Amino acid sequence: MNPGSIVLWELIGTAILVLLGTGVVANVTLTKTYGHAGGTLMVTFGWGFAVFAGASMANASGAHLNPAVTLGLAIAGKVAWSLTPFYLLGQLAGGIVGAVLCWLVYKLQFDTYADNEHTLGIFSTAPNVRNAPWNLVTEIIGTFVLVGWILLSPGAAATTGGVPHFGNSALGYAGVSFVVMGIGQSLGGPTGYAINPVRDLGPRIAYAFLLPIKGKGSPDWGYSWIPVVGPLIGGGLAGLLALILPSAT
Amino acid sequence: MNPGSIVLWELIGTAILVLLGTGVVANVTLTKTYGHAGGTLMVTFGWGFAVFAGASMANASGAHLNPAVTLGLAIAGKVAWSLTPFYLLGQLAGGIVGAVLCWLVYKLQFDTYADNEHTLGIFSTAPNVRNAPWNLVTEIIGTFVLVGWILLSPGAAATTGGVPHFGNSALGYAGVSFVVMGIGQSLGGPTGYAINPVRDLGPRIAYAFLLPIKGKGSPDWGYSWIPVVGPLIGGGLAGLLALILPSAT
Amino acid sequence: MNPGSIVLWELIGTAILVLLGTGVVANVTLTKTYGHAGGTLMVTFGWGFAVFAGASMANASGAHLNPAVTLGLAIAGKVAWSLTPFYLLGQLAGGIVGAVLCWLVYKLQFDTYADNEHTLGIFSTAPNVRNAPWNLVTEIIGTFVLVGWILLSPGAAATTGGVPHFGNSALGYAGVSFVVMGIGQSLGGPTGYAINPVRDLGPRIAYAFLLPIKGKGSPDWGYSWIPVVGPLIGGGLAGLLALILPSAT
Amino acid sequence: MNPGSIVLWELIGTAILVLLGTGVVANVTLTKTYGHAGGTLMVTFGWGFAVFAGASMANASGAHLNPAVTLGLAIAGKVAWSLTPFYLLGQLAGGIVGAVLCWLVYKLQFDTYADNEHTLGIFSTAPNVRNAPWNLVTEIIGTFVLVGWILLSPGAAATTGGVPHFGNSALGYAGVSFVVMGIGQSLGGPTGYAINPVRDLGPRIAYAFLLPIKGKGSPDWGYSWIPVVGPLIGGGLAGLLALILPSAT
Repeated sequence: MNPGSIVLWELIGTAILVLLGTGVVANVTLTKTYGHAGGTLMVTFGWGFAVFAGASMANASGAHLNPAVTLGLAIAGKVAWSLTPFYLLGQLAGGIVGAVLCWLVYKLQFDTYADNEHTLGIFSTAPNVRNAPWNLVTEIIGTFVLVGWILLSPGAAATTGGVPHFGNSALGYAGVSFVVMGIGQSLGGPTGYAINPVRDLGPRIAYAFLLPIKGKGSPDWGYSWIPVVGPLIGGGLAGLLALILPSAT
Repeated sequence: MNPGSIVLWELIGTAILVLLGTGVVANVTLTKTYGHAGGTLMVTFGWGFAVFAGASMANASGAHLNPAVTLGLAIAGKVAWSLTPFYLLGQLAGGIVGAVLCWLVYKLQFDTYADNEHTLGIFSTAPNVRNAPWNLVTEIIGTFVLVGWILLSPGAAATTGGVPHFGNSALGYAGVSFVVMGIGQSLGGPTGYAINPVRDLGPRIAYAFLLPIKGKGSPDWGYSWIPVVGPLIGGGLAGLLALILPSAT
Repeated sequence: MNPGSIVLWELIGTAILVLLGTGVVANVTLTKTYGHAGGTLMVTFGWGFAVFAGASMANASGAHLNPAVTLGLAIAGKVAWSLTPFYLLGQLAGGIVGAVLCWLVYKLQFDTYADNEHTLGIFSTAPNVRNAPWNLVTEIIGTFVLVGWILLSPGAAATTGGVPHFGNSALGYAGVSFVVMGIGQSLGGPTGYAINPVRDLGPRIAYAFLLPIKGKGSPDWGYSWIPVVGPLIGGGLAGLLALILPSAT
Repeated sequence: MNPGSIVLWELIGTAILVLLGTGVVANVTLTKTYGHAGGTLMVTFGWGFAVFAGASMANASGAHLNPAVTLGLAIAGKVAWSLTPFYLLGQLAGGIVGAVLCWLVYKLQFDTYADNEHTLGIFSTAPNVRNAPWNLVTEIIGTFVLVGWILLSPGAAATTGGVPHFGNSALGYAGVSFVVMGIGQSLGGPTGYAINPVRDLGPRIAYAFLLPIKGKGSPDWGYSWIPVVGPLIGGGLAGLLALILPSAT
């Protein structure tokens, strides 16, 4: 697959992922919506379906949508290192585009919201108890489960056109969406489960520089490196594990 | 496939879709039911399963059940333009029939409900904050995700008998139902996610002219064009995107 | 398939269906449980997973588990009329056995419950507003959706050993479980969606004659014919529709 | 498959299962989390997705992850008795490792929790009403459903490399996760559905001897044999049933 196509498909898939993912948090957080106070269960289902929708649409490039996935696959020898910058570029751009689309969908709700100072949480994660090393541990373990599942589950090894795919069926990406629902419900409690650097950094950049939300708060750059570094470590460790373990087939 | 069969199968599928879809809102809204105050999460799951049930049953005609889907598929070259009026006819009739069936199921509940003036919301969508251009934007983006997914996800390209299908398995339409659950949870907050002209207009016509609900309210014709025009624009844009993009296979 | 095997497999599948289905209502209704007041959404998911578990286990006999399904399949010509009494026998016995198993699981909870007079609702359905003709209409429409889906959805036509099956995969019955979740959420509001004569009558017989629940209430025989007759009419109509309609394949 | 690989894969799969399973209870129980008071429905979904994630990752060894499953399969003749000690070893180690990982993820939450005396329930099960014989009955029936489903559902018979598998697709283990969701919602009310000796004993050992939670409570050894013995009886009975019944294929 040529590099330009990788950028394009990863951008589309990540934009859909982030649009739907940040969308469900907007629905639950903002007040003039049908989903206000919808609860954690809806947020975790919404992010899972977001993964399903975005990943299915980016099947052409293997649907990484996440630098931690790309890193894990590269370490495990499933994608060429030379292609990884193109994955990353498309993913980061997609994260920004998705956040802008979410803002467009909820424009009237932001205009009528009384607490815009605390709207960063719609777009990016924050810890419940702030402590860099332990927040890192949480993100590392959560991402390790995600990327480990992608590398070890049955069907993961299927490769077409030089990139790994989850088969050519309409439900090929349901498995990874179930895993993301599970990670959210089980491991999302402490840090809000970024488990994806661009899912967090892209919307944070959009929030800081692009979105014209009146009275918006700080982008919290002090925390921003944790949902980038933690997932990369977790994905990298999963890649190493897949490299070391005897083949799952 | 002959035009009469298209009308028939789209009518059946859309009637089931709208029966179950409006049914879950009736269950949550009306008071003498087991699902009263069941919450947004149940509404979004209910509409998703409604799509699954209706689409599976209309597999013979490709299960569009939605003029925005038909328009997107036609623009993308996946269905003949000459067949589109038959799709539309079956879909609109199905939307009306489904709303009547929902009323039959909940007849006793409407008879005993204290607030029938506000029962339009069971059948058709309304915005939380009324603003035509931004309500349109929300419906456009939501429908773009739906039709984009249908056109770009793996398996979408499979065509049998001149109409596209999602395979011949009992779970072939689970993917699109997951996407509709996701759109509802993530993008449904501002306008109630019509994302389908006949899902909104069919029941609105039934509410205005057919359903004998005592003390029923206005059909709100002033808003009625938005859930028609918005989804058509969104579906059309998705069709254009699929036409322009390099093939996903 | 020989008649004795049909009785056996239908008994097993229906017992599992009714055990899990009545179990989730017990969990939500009784007080000394982890699921007390768990809500309608949990009840509808629980019944759906109950269908999935029971149907998968009874795949050998085609997993009807429901006389309305058997009737619809017989009218549609998918199962021999001569076999239908054996289906019915296994199903009714399974319904009774499942209710007894549910009582065993929740024995301590029944012993410590303060309102055993109102425990019939754990085992059998009751209408929110009692009105025989309209309660019948609700059950007819709900069951029509279930049996119509079974007869018209892709994969439905597959037949092995003289009985129809939903394929030989671990997820073959997920589709019908999604439809039952949808019917519960959307059409279950007025009557509690029996949509299956033995799912209602079997546990009602167990409640009336077998279960030693102290202070238990009336089995409400006056209503008991509606969740039998309504589903049979609905299933029969679906069978007629499948017979008349041009083939879905 | 060689014994060392069985230990390894069962350890990995069970660790992921227990990490995610105990994780969702931690998320709901502890206070400084995003899932606090998330409810029984989220707990049952979380445990179901935990099974899906862990089982998919341990597909190489057949993904028992549960001595009751191993026992049932051995009795039914689907796995060699000589291999069962290796399954058990990996499973118990995995249960301990998973609990430690859960504690790492929620370290800051345990540090800031006001009621650590009652945190055993995050890791191991306890009955709502304590009564050894009836608690045993509940665990036996719940596990019988789980292992019975694994042995009787379509696809269960597929065997590769001497161990049974649920196919080589990304969704192969979705079925068993749906069944576990159902058992949790329907039969989990009285005892918290261990239905797996190591899922309960492994974390209990970790809680008693390894986890440095300040002010932690008793490991409740008095109850600990019930979630071991009950599931083994239930799984064994399911294995006997599968041995006796005419083949489901």
